Amino acid sequence: MMSQTLAEIGEFGLIRLIRDLIDMEGVNEPRLMMGIGDDSASFLPREGYEILITCDCMVEGRHYLRGHINPLDLGSRAMVMNISDIGAMGGIPVFATVSLGVKKDTPVHYILEMYRGFIRELNPLGAAVIGGNITGSDHSDFMDITLIGEVERGKIIRRSTARPDDIVMVTGFPGQAAAGLSILLNNEDTGELQSNPLVRAYNKPVHRAREGRAAALSGYATSMIDISDGLLGDLGHICEESGVGAEIIREALPVSAYMRAFSGSNGRDHYKWILGESDDYELIITCAPNNTDKVRSAIAEISDVPVTEIGRITSKTNGIEIVFPDGSKHEEVHIGWDHFKK
Amino acid sequence: MMSQTLAEIGEFGLIRLIRDLIDMEGVNEPRLMMGIGDDSASFLPREGYEILITCDCMVEGRHYLRGHINPLDLGSRAMVMNISDIGAMGGIPVFATVSLGVKKDTPVHYILEMYRGFIRELNPLGAAVIGGNITGSDHSDFMDITLIGEVERGKIIRRSTARPDDIVMVTGFPGQAAAGLSILLNNEDTGELQSNPLVRAYNKPVHRAREGRAAALSGYATSMIDISDGLLGDLGHICEESGVGAEIIREALPVSAYMRAFSGSNGRDHYKWILGESDDYELIITCAPNNTDKVRSAIAEISDVPVTEIGRITSKTNGIEIVFPDGSKHEEVHIGWDHFKK
Repeated sequence: MMSQTLAEIGEFGLIRLIRDLIDMEGVNEPRLMMGIGDDSASFLPREGYEILITCDCMVEGRHYLRGHINPLDLGSRAMVMNISDIGAMGGIPVFATVSLGVKKDTPVHYILEMYRGFIRELNPLGAAVIGGNITGSDHSDFMDITLIGEVERGKIIRRSTARPDDIVMVTGFPGQAAAGLSILLNNEDTGELQSNPLVRAYNKPVHRAREGRAAALSGYATSMIDISDGLLGDLGHICEESGVGAEIIREALPVSAYMRAFSGSNGRDHYKWILGESDDYELIITCAPNNTDKVRSAIAEISDVPVTEIGRITSKTNGIEIVFPDGSKHEEVHIGWDHFKK
Repeated sequence: MMSQTLAEIGEFGLIRLIRDLIDMEGVNEPRLMMGIGDDSASFLPREGYEILITCDCMVEGRHYLRGHINPLDLGSRAMVMNISDIGAMGGIPVFATVSLGVKKDTPVHYILEMYRGFIRELNPLGAAVIGGNITGSDHSDFMDITLIGEVERGKIIRRSTARPDDIVMVTGFPGQAAAGLSILLNNEDTGELQSNPLVRAYNKPVHRAREGRAAALSGYATSMIDISDGLLGDLGHICEESGVGAEIIREALPVSAYMRAFSGSNGRDHYKWILGESDDYELIITCAPNNTDKVRSAIAEISDVPVTEIGRITSKTNGIEIVFPDGSKHEEVHIGWDHFKK
């Protein structure tokens, strides 16, 4: 049955298999009133919480190439993108709907593996897929996930509330995913590439939802965003929405050993990777200068991920400056941000 | 500016225009805490209500052809599909997220008109678009809408709760959309076709969310579903999920004057159109035999749409029978349903 294609099994046959998979391998959320199998799913909201909603879409050939990522990791990656958006508000994911467009010759096994990828990310958070739909697609597959989350009233952290003099912190090692993508695109994949840590950073990124939630619940984070347009791009979103600027100390940027080795062999300045477009889903968090330790220790209680201070928010509204070791400053053009300028 | 394409204006430029459009032309929902412009949108749930979630996707070339429908109607139609799913549970839509995949040469004006279509359907219900995303697509446009709704706890009507001897009722005139699609596909469109009532039924279908809600709040509906797989297909879903069968009186099926004229000129039995696959978004409602008047008058209080009794639920679990005028019965094969059979 697993080697059948979507064309052979049909939409409803596939939905039944997906429903069985979710029943068997997904978590059972007691507040779910109705899951897959009616016109709508339904759940009971939690008292004292706001509902969060985010959606993100991946298109084959544009956001991924089938040959470069297995369906389990592809499902994971698509779900991580969305979990990251809920985490960047301080929330917890609870329910997901998945809308798939797949070519008729897609093996059923491939689709079920994608669902296993969704479940792999949702289960540890107690969240579940509760609905969706499947349609044929003639040229490229696509998957659009809507993720519902919850956050205690008043605990939400926005991107629009950074203040001058706030410290800018970042989790993990941004830029590794972009370096990994470059490795995938510039090398023949003999299978070995998949275990390269930078390729793993691209194909199997890790969300920081727990870290984001810890920062939010600490009460000290002033703004937060996840990095999906690159460190500069997303810091740019914070600046734009908060009406502030920022100063980044170049030497303070976190460089992993993998990145150092890669950029050494590759001749490209690793700061370009770290600052530029990259799908890492790390978090940028700002807070008042005397609260950095509180935010960092709130995160350290639940996670080993490094949190690095990389600069500060300024009252300038004209952009982000990079401060070099000699004290000189360079104003950056903000990828994914300049279209927003007035 | 309106003649620009997506490639010229960029994703963020377009998002800004969409945000402005929604601010200016959409409704202002006071429970919305955060709309477009952060990692997630958020809202305060209403006390005593369940949250409903549905999503549906339309792919160009598969669910519509650009040349056959204008973007305003396309947006309306996509939103109506989703509103219908919320209405079929007895709920009210409150918030929508929209995920668009569009070709780079798509005019900005075309995309904004689609959003106007969304707003046209949501505004009268007090609902709003609160988020989404836009991605490029190389071959076909697609749009995936997730619609969030609410329903009073305990008032939800499922498709799995029809009981033997219940009466089967249907709103409006199913099959008109299928007839309209056939007209579009078999005639050159000189512009005149767009005013044909059957073509309008396909391009600008009407949801029955108010009628569904009235039926649910009456307390007498035992099951409900919206017709998107055709009358037989969706009655099949009710039968399958409820573990029952059904008997449909062929002469009782509602035939509009337009349908009668069309099928007369076209030589095809109009019952085939009425029973077969059609995107009408009418509702099938079941209730106990002595409650039909209560359900009908609850609907009549808020709507002029005809509600027709077309048959009854049976305890047979082997399918749906059509009863002919001479009393003979014919068991139907259920399009979109047989894949589900055990």
